[in-house]
Amino acid sequence: MPNEPVTVSRRDLLSLIGTLSGSAAMYQAMTSLGFAADSGYKGPIKLDGDPKGASVLILGAGLAGMTAALELRKAGYRVQILEFNSRAGGRNWTLRGGDSFTELGGVTQTCEFEQGLYLNPGPWRIPRHHRAVLDYCRRLGVALEPFTQLNHNAFLHATGAFGGAPQRIREIKADFQGQVSELLAKVTQQGRLDELVTKEDRETLMQALRSWGALDRNYAYKANLNSAEARGYVKDPGGGLTAVPIPSEPIALSDILKSRLWRHLQNFARYNFQTTMFQPVGGMDMIGKAFVREVGEVIRYDAKVTRIQQDEHGVTVTYTDLKAPGMPQQARADWCICTIPLPILGQLPVNVGGRMKAAIDAVPYSSSVKIGLQFKRRFWEEDEAIYGGISYTDLPIQQIAYPNSGYNSGGKGVLLGAYIFGPNAFEFTSLPPAERIARAVEFGAAIHPQYRAKYENGVSVAWHRMPFTMGCAGDWSEAARAEHYANLCQIDGRIVLAGEHASYIPAWQEGAILSSLDAIARLHERVVKA
Amino acid sequence: MPNEPVTVSRRDLLSLIGTLSGSAAMYQAMTSLGFAADSGYKGPIKLDGDPKGASVLILGAGLAGMTAALELRKAGYRVQILEFNSRAGGRNWTLRGGDSFTELGGVTQTCEFEQGLYLNPGPWRIPRHHRAVLDYCRRLGVALEPFTQLNHNAFLHATGAFGGAPQRIREIKADFQGQVSELLAKVTQQGRLDELVTKEDRETLMQALRSWGALDRNYAYKANLNSAEARGYVKDPGGGLTAVPIPSEPIALSDILKSRLWRHLQNFARYNFQTTMFQPVGGMDMIGKAFVREVGEVIRYDAKVTRIQQDEHGVTVTYTDLKAPGMPQQARADWCICTIPLPILGQLPVNVGGRMKAAIDAVPYSSSVKIGLQFKRRFWEEDEAIYGGISYTDLPIQQIAYPNSGYNSGGKGVLLGAYIFGPNAFEFTSLPPAERIARAVEFGAAIHPQYRAKYENGVSVAWHRMPFTMGCAGDWSEAARAEHYANLCQIDGRIVLAGEHASYIPAWQEGAILSSLDAIARLHERVVKA
Repeated sequence: MPNEPVTVSRRDLLSLIGTLSGSAAMYQAMTSLGFAADSGYKGPIKLDGDPKGASVLILGAGLAGMTAALELRKAGYRVQILEFNSRAGGRNWTLRGGDSFTELGGVTQTCEFEQGLYLNPGPWRIPRHHRAVLDYCRRLGVALEPFTQLNHNAFLHATGAFGGAPQRIREIKADFQGQVSELLAKVTQQGRLDELVTKEDRETLMQALRSWGALDRNYAYKANLNSAEARGYVKDPGGGLTAVPIPSEPIALSDILKSRLWRHLQNFARYNFQTTMFQPVGGMDMIGKAFVREVGEVIRYDAKVTRIQQDEHGVTVTYTDLKAPGMPQQARADWCICTIPLPILGQLPVNVGGRMKAAIDAVPYSSSVKIGLQFKRRFWEEDEAIYGGISYTDLPIQQIAYPNSGYNSGGKGVLLGAYIFGPNAFEFTSLPPAERIARAVEFGAAIHPQYRAKYENGVSVAWHRMPFTMGCAGDWSEAARAEHYANLCQIDGRIVLAGEHASYIPAWQEGAILSSLDAIARLHERVVKA
Repeated sequence: MPNEPVTVSRRDLLSLIGTLSGSAAMYQAMTSLGFAADSGYKGPIKLDGDPKGASVLILGAGLAGMTAALELRKAGYRVQILEFNSRAGGRNWTLRGGDSFTELGGVTQTCEFEQGLYLNPGPWRIPRHHRAVLDYCRRLGVALEPFTQLNHNAFLHATGAFGGAPQRIREIKADFQGQVSELLAKVTQQGRLDELVTKEDRETLMQALRSWGALDRNYAYKANLNSAEARGYVKDPGGGLTAVPIPSEPIALSDILKSRLWRHLQNFARYNFQTTMFQPVGGMDMIGKAFVREVGEVIRYDAKVTRIQQDEHGVTVTYTDLKAPGMPQQARADWCICTIPLPILGQLPVNVGGRMKAAIDAVPYSSSVKIGLQFKRRFWEEDEAIYGGISYTDLPIQQIAYPNSGYNSGGKGVLLGAYIFGPNAFEFTSLPPAERIARAVEFGAAIHPQYRAKYENGVSVAWHRMPFTMGCAGDWSEAARAEHYANLCQIDGRIVLAGEHASYIPAWQEGAILSSLDAIARLHERVVKA
């Protein structure tokens, strides 16, 4: 019955497409058929098969290390973690009032934030497509709330533009989009798009540009209620006899172009920053703490690894107990999962092969500084109607981020007063913490003059001076990826590396967890087949 | 010393600009100087002066009525509210399991949602620039959480496009923006923009289009890691040895134009829908309930107004006690603030002047239907990674909105399964509630096939059938505004109207509150000066 309609399930259809056309086509088809196939994470890992009593020593109780411990123990392995710090989590870290930490160089800071306020000096946001992080949050009971990346009412600021006055993001965004639409509509009307777009499409394009660009019926972007509905009003529509709105005057495209504020618009469009993003309620370390509830008893804290030595039968790790230095300690297991950040690992004696060794040395860590500032009142909300989100500036502080919780509640608040990368980060790292904070207050006052009167205290984390990472995250070049990435991730004898540096998503927790899951899957396969 | 620099405070400068150039210029200047001047709300209203024991009868315990009661009582007035329903809030309303209500026509629905789940059948989101609503939330202790309007991972759906398959918003958004940028870059390179943009600006424009449109170095928008960083991947970057990302294939501009899905993009750009938006934690009626904590004792519930009669000395309102119908009751006060929706007010005998009477009759109310659907599991999160936000479709249901709380927590969930305006709303209103719900499930299954297996129960509110409003909100035409708006808002003898219909922000709670504040300010002025 060759002409009868055939009912095929979506799954069968996918499998057919996969067979006929290879995996990329299949993935594409899966996406169009509505499956959320974009993540490499396919749900809780299944490590079937008998580990035969094998033991695994895990170096580092960050998210990569604790993920490995949790899953391997569940699969029947004996596991132990050695952790440098007196706490778990690694860069999954939240600073609250009373917390203290010491930088390389010896300066100790004690955070003085009021109760309930905090700073996430490391990761602070979770994209919705970071399926592994989200799944562990669900499994471990970590409550999430939205993280606002794009707040239309936050600022874009360039020292040399608009007399130094910060501009609302909505204004730059709407005015750029509106005037780009106006230009394209003009050339379309002039017949200059005739070779590029069909006649039928040109008519629809004009409609689309008018809608999308908030153009008027003459395809112009100018001060009227249309553009006000995109960029905002001078006076909003109101109620009663004082209700008539006043539209605002767009910024000329030429001024936007010269200001270079358009550079920041892509920060709101990028895949990793698209809505909906999350943060754990109460601080990012709620994730680390949830892992500790599961695997806390296998973590040995204050253990500074000094040597990693493998032989045919296992791995011996030498470490110093930082609370009782003296005789070096040793731990031994059949296998070792090492999540130690590369700038530190590269300095340790580790007898891995030349390829992995070269890979370890090939990846510099980016420099980054975060500064948290406590203020007497939430002036950004009360005076400027900025609730969450980020302002961008060309000042060395680069970003000011507003808290994504406790909205509209009055009282004190903590801003991320600087989030610095690149040369500015090296410069700030070289300063004593108090000086970093003073500069953040001084620079920030150019955007929020309330800083000077309302500032109370601050804390600063310069990642290159953190003794447990000596940097922010793995900074892979394309060339290094091509030459070294596979060598970094391959199991070398009885040692395998994991962490954000062993991923294509450096600096993100998802990279740490996915690299760990990939590493333990391969390790387990080797153990089961042995 | 005429050449010495003068230090002027921002406030003095503003006042100078105001004096010299009138209020529009001053508003504009205020905005550029960083004041959040855009709202008509300037903080808690101050009603100075002695009301001399005057009494005010308020009709309707919605937000307009309760705002008036709260502020007038604080200023020394004697106030009473008559409310038709057995609850306060009016359209500020949340449906939870166990709640029941009866439509015009007599059908009663009882909501069967599981505990903790709810639907806001009326207002459901609060823009950050609705300063009056936010200020009352702060003053009355209503906790807020973000409302997600734009979720890049939600769907746009057109029955006749892409074989009926829903498309991710991020794909349509990025592909439209990318290809518009590509077109404009092309004509710029061809010299076709030379008369419109200066040479210097053209170079910067090319850079901006490349950044903003996710173009490659040849200013092309096509499948590569650039465009993937805007529209998403077929396979996301991952960790370990399975980490390499696979970019996705953009949708051709011509297909986007023909699909007309671009129409929906403006829903995410409009001023009222820009980030950051809010919802009260636990349901929109938390605002109404907070007002009731303040003014509950002056509300007489179940009071159906049948006549409003003013004379030189006061206003007499006749009403029926719906719990004990029989003899009509009367209430009298020196003044009356009437917030009764116009479709109902227009049917009552009210002795106001011809102008106000004509205004009352000039404003039809829009039709709208909301349908809440409870499902066995949150498949939109678990299967499709959609956390909050809204999918748009050309099906009669028009929108599907996902809950903005309880993210990633598993368990059951309630979707807004339809949010309907226009002709579809009239059509749905004419159906019995069970039939409306059945259709919402049927239509929704075209976007989420999981609907059929996971649907549990539903509830439907057709605003034209709600006896306390007989419509969704005031639907002002430009012509009606010009002729009738001022007449509607003017005090007529001893009666003044308030509510979202007496504002330029119909259907928004801010309109109700601002109209009320404007009305009581004028009323108070009259009382004090009398």
